[in-house]
Amino acid sequence: MDSIFGVDIGGTNVKLGILSREGEILDTGSVPTMAAEGPGRVAERVRDWLRERSGDGHACVAAGVDCAGLVDGAKGYLYSSPNLPGWKNIDLAAIFSEHLSLPVVVDNDVNCAAYGEYRRGAGRGTSCFACVTLGTGVGGGIVTGGTILRGSSGFAGEIGHTVVQIDGPLCSCGRRGHVEALVGASAIVERAHRAMENGNTSVLRDITTLTVKDIHDAAVAGDMTAIAVLAETGRYLGYGLCNLVHLFNPEVIAVGGGIAGAGDFILEPARETVKLNVMNERLADVRIVQAELGNTASFTGAALLAAEKVPAR
Amino acid sequence: MDSIFGVDIGGTNVKLGILSREGEILDTGSVPTMAAEGPGRVAERVRDWLRERSGDGHACVAAGVDCAGLVDGAKGYLYSSPNLPGWKNIDLAAIFSEHLSLPVVVDNDVNCAAYGEYRRGAGRGTSCFACVTLGTGVGGGIVTGGTILRGSSGFAGEIGHTVVQIDGPLCSCGRRGHVEALVGASAIVERAHRAMENGNTSVLRDITTLTVKDIHDAAVAGDMTAIAVLAETGRYLGYGLCNLVHLFNPEVIAVGGGIAGAGDFILEPARETVKLNVMNERLADVRIVQAELGNTASFTGAALLAAEKVPAR
Repeated sequence: MDSIFGVDIGGTNVKLGILSREGEILDTGSVPTMAAEGPGRVAERVRDWLRERSGDGHACVAAGVDCAGLVDGAKGYLYSSPNLPGWKNIDLAAIFSEHLSLPVVVDNDVNCAAYGEYRRGAGRGTSCFACVTLGTGVGGGIVTGGTILRGSSGFAGEIGHTVVQIDGPLCSCGRRGHVEALVGASAIVERAHRAMENGNTSVLRDITTLTVKDIHDAAVAGDMTAIAVLAETGRYLGYGLCNLVHLFNPEVIAVGGGIAGAGDFILEPARETVKLNVMNERLADVRIVQAELGNTASFTGAALLAAEKVPAR
Repeated sequence: MDSIFGVDIGGTNVKLGILSREGEILDTGSVPTMAAEGPGRVAERVRDWLRERSGDGHACVAAGVDCAGLVDGAKGYLYSSPNLPGWKNIDLAAIFSEHLSLPVVVDNDVNCAAYGEYRRGAGRGTSCFACVTLGTGVGGGIVTGGTILRGSSGFAGEIGHTVVQIDGPLCSCGRRGHVEALVGASAIVERAHRAMENGNTSVLRDITTLTVKDIHDAAVAGDMTAIAVLAETGRYLGYGLCNLVHLFNPEVIAVGGGIAGAGDFILEPARETVKLNVMNERLADVRIVQAELGNTASFTGAALLAAEKVPAR
């Protein structure tokens, strides 16, 4: 049976999936990234993993590769990636195609996650769908009429860098008041520290190096400070989603990524903020839901994009 | 020769154009709107105008009708329009089609202006184009891959209601911190009043009921207060355009509408703000230009949309 191969290159690991042409996951695995060795060595490790699994009878006909960063999906070209230092201006599609001996498409990880969720997850059956990923960075992808919206140079969907607070806090990109500066992981941790400096009691006080996961766990355990920190984060996220709603009028927005597990602690205040800040009721109809595919979303989307380039046998 | 007909229904006048199928304007005119008489009477006046002109040998094969407000372009349905009180939930396409005895498409005026500029004006030859109109309200339309981006219920492109300043000034829609609340006509006038209250000298002091046109004229005449007011407006507009750039990555943004005549007094500070607030240089490549078609943009776009529904003879 024809299968397709999805390769999600993260900073630490490469997540791998063999899927049916319809996007059903048949096998998964991972190999270490070790980006410093360069993309050729990474492609070899991925190839070795695939060869080993091919004994199971999955003959992959195409591969989709994704990573964070600035990618020109049409050309399969990676300009730069925050997770892959030194990988600059490389023809990633050509490198993987050579090593895998397969047609390869390359795209941004969030675009792929959006496409994966559109085809197999929270965006199924929608005509206009947006996916937002929360983590160290805040990313976004938009699928309209079944196609990823790319814009003129491939960077559409960057919700993390939209401005919601003129002259607001500093963002990782060096600008101010961007959504990421208000809801990215370090903003959440900073918010928790501030709450405690302001005298709030919290189990978080006992933790030396606070992470978003700690804050989430504390919220689940009922810690009111942690809950308030996530709620404030959700409200800021809501303003960003508001702008997505006004500009794209999506039917569904799926929120995924590391801290999306924090689910309604963040999403419920975000929904409330959207409802209170959109210009009319019809726009308030947007459904804001948790993404469904977790860390398989990106390789699923990448593989499905690749499948489109290769006619079924 | 086959012609097409464009009908732009404003609050005071209906602007009319007979165009070639390629969008070249062959004849223009206008009739009074008198919206209170209802859409049927307006359609009759438009029909009478067209009949009179048809003596000139322009046989229109389709008509495009546009107005401000919430329009479902796919259905030709008008939910409501700020300029046409009482026109609520009406099948505008059916009404005009009956009176004109032509196939009719109906769309939002800013979507039509965007499409008109895309086909015949500032957006020619772009793959990803946005049009922003400044006036009492602030509207937006997006054309990608040759098609107007509509979103799930037809309201995409509402840049005027994106949030750039959480808890900022009150918008006409009742929400806070929207772009329109910062760069709409009343915000500009308010800004001029504030500048004068703060003691700035200005020729504007002598005007009883200040309008945006007065401020523009004063700026052209070199009035520093007027220039500063328009520059501050441009900076706020720039934050809105920034969000358009991050979410949609357009090649060109055309700015039109009443005060766009103020041109570089507003656009230059807007360009500067975009440059200073986008996440990377590639996004800063966007060209922000004045719209080219003036008040013919909407009927041109509407007529060209209608032409697409009717095969050339």
